[in-house]
Amino acid sequence: MDDQQWLERQFGCRLHQESLLAQALSHRSVGSRNNERLEFLGDSVLGYIVSEELYRRFPDADEGQLSRLRVSLVKGSALAEVARELSLGEQLRLGSGERHGGGRRRDSILADSFEAVLGAITLDSGIEACRQAIFKVFRSRLDGLRLEQARKDPKTRLQELLQGSGRPLPDYVLRNAAGEDHARIFTVACELADGKVIAEGVGDSRRAAEQAAAAAVLDQLGES
Amino acid sequence: MDDQQWLERQFGCRLHQESLLAQALSHRSVGSRNNERLEFLGDSVLGYIVSEELYRRFPDADEGQLSRLRVSLVKGSALAEVARELSLGEQLRLGSGERHGGGRRRDSILADSFEAVLGAITLDSGIEACRQAIFKVFRSRLDGLRLEQARKDPKTRLQELLQGSGRPLPDYVLRNAAGEDHARIFTVACELADGKVIAEGVGDSRRAAEQAAAAAVLDQLGES
Repeated sequence: MDDQQWLERQFGCRLHQESLLAQALSHRSVGSRNNERLEFLGDSVLGYIVSEELYRRFPDADEGQLSRLRVSLVKGSALAEVARELSLGEQLRLGSGERHGGGRRRDSILADSFEAVLGAITLDSGIEACRQAIFKVFRSRLDGLRLEQARKDPKTRLQELLQGSGRPLPDYVLRNAAGEDHARIFTVACELADGKVIAEGVGDSRRAAEQAAAAAVLDQLGES
Repeated sequence: MDDQQWLERQFGCRLHQESLLAQALSHRSVGSRNNERLEFLGDSVLGYIVSEELYRRFPDADEGQLSRLRVSLVKGSALAEVARELSLGEQLRLGSGERHGGGRRRDSILADSFEAVLGAITLDSGIEACRQAIFKVFRSRLDGLRLEQARKDPKTRLQELLQGSGRPLPDYVLRNAAGEDHARIFTVACELADGKVIAEGVGDSRRAAEQAAAAAVLDQLGES
């Protein structure tokens, strides 16, 4: 599919300057006319458009929640997923090293190029055209957002809950680490200072196990 | 001066919704109707508008330089300086604790409130109105920017220069720390591994002295 057909199908728009679109799809491995400057612009465009939309959609969210919702939409791994859905990798121009090294599938290249396309739309057709393109791409993700998802992680919530009532911080104790080096399973216990509430969590990293244990304690405290 | 007169004089616009402007000027110490959500929005608006303007003004800058130019304009201390020039502190609503604790002059409160005002303009009058307001406020700063200012700091440049020619990293050695605790003067020597190039730098922090020493070495190498 040529670039303009692809853009029209996925973003609902065409550019007046085809060369700008080609540039947005050119990784730096192809040479000096690449998408790094457009990525700089597109990143800021996406931040603004998503922020304004979240502000309007979540009138009861505080700025910390808005910020966490925004991160969930625009972090690199999320943008790479979006780019995959849009088959962006197939449009990419890569130098031969990146092409053979699997660059088309790399999260960072996909996320950066997605932002660069947004930069190109903004420069070519203006911020309102880019806002519509972003809405088209993110519609279902935006509609699926719940304020609930903007909650802090379990360890932070448990810490704040305890501090709020003047109680000591919990202890996280490694109980077990099983499995081979490349596939370890960690078990961590979270213990409150009163010794009455103890729960275990399991995860593929110590950090993940601690979060699971904190979540289990919150659950026992009726705060899940 | 009432808020609308102030806004018109400093930003060149008036808002349809006066209450939104009052909210943008209300620190969280006054209660729940405060400027934190507007700050979240305004921060992203400013990032976008400045990014697009820098992209257009500096066609030869790479994304790292664009990024450093942007930081120089929108970092907290720079925004606080802008806010002071606009006498924003005089319009601020603060709770009594902050009012008596000098909140009107605090960098973070000034910078955050400045961003909140931009958020209010955007919500009330749209992004193009806010773009014009930002241009009015930042015109002289934008006109004064030189790509030269986007250079990396001396330590980074020296490190990259050495690495580029396969040479070892320099040593930074503290030579002296003089003066009282609250006004120390540090002297640091920067030594290249060949032992031939050594220069000293002086500063009011160890970091500042290291930067000065690296700058002096770059100078000796003809790279200043």
